[in-house]
Amino acid sequence: MSLIKKIKDKKVNFEFNKEYLKVVTNKITNNDAQFITNSFNEMHPADAADIIEHLSQNDRENLIKLNNFNIDPEVFVELNESVQSEIIAYLSSDSIVKLLTNLESDDAIAILENVDEKDKNDILSSLPPKDRFALLESLSYPEDTAARIMQRDFTAIPSNWSVGQTIDYLRENKDLPEEFLEIFIVDEDFKPIGTVPSSKVLTASRDIKMLTIMSESQLLIPVDMDKEEVGNVFENYNLNSAAVVDKTNKLVGMITYDDVLTVLKEEAEEDALRLAGVGDEEITDGVLTKTKRRFNWLLLNLFTAFLATWVISLFGATIEQMVVLAFLMPIVASMGGNAGMQTLAVTVRTLATNDLTKNNFTQNILKEFNIGILNGIIFAIISALIVHLWFGDNLLSLIISVSMIITMMVAGLFGIVVPLTLKKMDIDPAIASSVFVTTITDVIGFVSFLGVSAYFL
Amino acid sequence: MSLIKKIKDKKVNFEFNKEYLKVVTNKITNNDAQFITNSFNEMHPADAADIIEHLSQNDRENLIKLNNFNIDPEVFVELNESVQSEIIAYLSSDSIVKLLTNLESDDAIAILENVDEKDKNDILSSLPPKDRFALLESLSYPEDTAARIMQRDFTAIPSNWSVGQTIDYLRENKDLPEEFLEIFIVDEDFKPIGTVPSSKVLTASRDIKMLTIMSESQLLIPVDMDKEEVGNVFENYNLNSAAVVDKTNKLVGMITYDDVLTVLKEEAEEDALRLAGVGDEEITDGVLTKTKRRFNWLLLNLFTAFLATWVISLFGATIEQMVVLAFLMPIVASMGGNAGMQTLAVTVRTLATNDLTKNNFTQNILKEFNIGILNGIIFAIISALIVHLWFGDNLLSLIISVSMIITMMVAGLFGIVVPLTLKKMDIDPAIASSVFVTTITDVIGFVSFLGVSAYFL
Repeated sequence: MSLIKKIKDKKVNFEFNKEYLKVVTNKITNNDAQFITNSFNEMHPADAADIIEHLSQNDRENLIKLNNFNIDPEVFVELNESVQSEIIAYLSSDSIVKLLTNLESDDAIAILENVDEKDKNDILSSLPPKDRFALLESLSYPEDTAARIMQRDFTAIPSNWSVGQTIDYLRENKDLPEEFLEIFIVDEDFKPIGTVPSSKVLTASRDIKMLTIMSESQLLIPVDMDKEEVGNVFENYNLNSAAVVDKTNKLVGMITYDDVLTVLKEEAEEDALRLAGVGDEEITDGVLTKTKRRFNWLLLNLFTAFLATWVISLFGATIEQMVVLAFLMPIVASMGGNAGMQTLAVTVRTLATNDLTKNNFTQNILKEFNIGILNGIIFAIISALIVHLWFGDNLLSLIISVSMIITMMVAGLFGIVVPLTLKKMDIDPAIASSVFVTTITDVIGFVSFLGVSAYFL
Repeated sequence: MSLIKKIKDKKVNFEFNKEYLKVVTNKITNNDAQFITNSFNEMHPADAADIIEHLSQNDRENLIKLNNFNIDPEVFVELNESVQSEIIAYLSSDSIVKLLTNLESDDAIAILENVDEKDKNDILSSLPPKDRFALLESLSYPEDTAARIMQRDFTAIPSNWSVGQTIDYLRENKDLPEEFLEIFIVDEDFKPIGTVPSSKVLTASRDIKMLTIMSESQLLIPVDMDKEEVGNVFENYNLNSAAVVDKTNKLVGMITYDDVLTVLKEEAEEDALRLAGVGDEEITDGVLTKTKRRFNWLLLNLFTAFLATWVISLFGATIEQMVVLAFLMPIVASMGGNAGMQTLAVTVRTLATNDLTKNNFTQNILKEFNIGILNGIIFAIISALIVHLWFGDNLLSLIISVSMIITMMVAGLFGIVVPLTLKKMDIDPAIASSVFVTTITDVIGFVSFLGVSAYFL
């Protein structure tokens, strides 16, 4: 990484420094909180967080419990969720309160979401009333809504102001957020009627009315909108920031690009992990936590595997008659499983991005069905050829061809129908689909292969 | 979706309108370009793009070829890549040139990347010299670099200006980008030395020096940095925008949040699809394209399935001796495959986000190995119990337990070692890993189960 040379400010470190990690570990052992506090202060918070994440769990605990060591809120928000919860457990309620009062409301909410119900109430009651009410209000909305990711600090002005009046107000008012991408224009009921990007205020003359440079296209996010949908809206309409309104259309907050970036990225990542049967796993989770997170999936898979075993056992006599069937039977099931997972991965993604809708699903189901038939025919021919060359048995070639076509057709069809059905039932298709699809393709693969065999033998 | 009620501006449509799609289809048949142009102008470009994507391929071709219909550049950039390439094929070179001159440089580059080499040169030579040189310069960098996603329009000022001077310059200069999040401060060699967010200029008094409100932490992106790495830097350091510099550290462009959002999201999505053996598939692709995109993966899987068949065939005599082995053998392979894919999905994600590095990989390999042993023991016990209850055969229970532990251990180990090795060899671990991992777990599953059986029988 040549980037490191280009950094003017020494605080940002691209190359993670292993030696420095050793130094910090040493200083923890020697109770040297002063050194660690000083050097964390010199670093970018993201880099300090990186070091804390790389410490062993034991060292992390010792670090937090060092006398006079206080974790900087800026560093804390950069930690991954699993390390955050770990550290919250070591912190006194006082330290948590101190942490929360120094954070923006969306970051504070994210932390409170990971605290026990009992501790949460203790912490909330120790907060200054203003912060407490704001957080309680956000917490009153369901977990994955716009309310939880919005900021409550924003800049709003009345609709009749000029650029000059606006600039004077911004210069005098000390209560404004440190940075804002856009200024909201509100009517007398505090309903947002438009936005002006900060840069447009800068390039306009003082006498121009804000209304005339206001952006007409105005998109209001209801405070209870699902945060994934917020992400899709931002992406679809290329928004930088958007106003969040309550039921009476009053401006209550603002969501910006960076809040949404995290949502969209996490969502795409989650789907990838869920399709593979892993929950929200973090690299810092321990062996036991990771094993627990993956257990349910494997258990479910064990039962479906035994289901396949039972299906095969029904054809015991056929296999005894011709043991080579046992050699070949995993092929059809495996091809079906793979074709089904391909369709499934594509379907889950198009569902998440709202590209697959009521208007095109019949067309897309038909498409997958056709792909299944096409693939079935292609791979029926290839595998019949290989079987012919290997075993020189035309009946075996026929059996594998017929069962391959059936299985691939079913795989394509269920690869799209299963996630669509689950979505309709309000179940996350990424979590539940693949076990259904692979079970179906396994069973169909074995039944069609052994069934066709039994018919011909 | 209740959101639709909250939209003040009629132009944004959350609910896709199927009836309207029929109207457009009708107007295409009736050659009514005027109607379509007018109604597209009234819509948000993203909504107009949505309608074009929902048309049949045939209707899309007819639409583009209608007399007097010109596709709006704003609409064009909102289309997905596969529809873009389709439309590019219907457009005359003149129309493409018109399209490109109206786009920002990063969008123009994205389109040129999808044009044939020959057409690309024709189009480039028809562009105004200034646009041509800018695009040729970007195209001279490798495809996935910062150069390809950066904008060449930015706002930069000398370091000795005051806030007042800056505002006066911004008001007078008509050549500035329409919107900018930050103003870059450059030295006499045009090297960036800091940034000031637009909102900070608004809140400061006219006499304040820009240097004093400049953000000290300055992160310069080299023009040839990989765009995924740019994404990780933006995410890690919570950047809104960053300066892009050439080899001499001169400011040449700017990358903003929205450019990076697309990169990060696409990257996470791609990994999910690649793990399932699907390339960059779009929902609008036809049956043949989709079948082709998925073919290689299925073919590879067919060969590895035959490899497993060959492995099983080595134990033909053992299976003939005890046909129940054929019923049970898919269980171990299937459990190994699933455990391996879990580890793999987590590893690919942590590699993509740079969470898995040289500093912690030994520790993480060990972790996965331990999880494998733990899972192996748990599922050995459960499956031994089920086999005992079903077949009442202790030897079978022993066989399945031993082979389960071996397979799960190997699965966990290879689930992390395979992607790490591929990454070291500069091969995308998301593309190539899963076929290796499932082949290994299949072979180990069958060999260990049938091998242990042969040993005891």
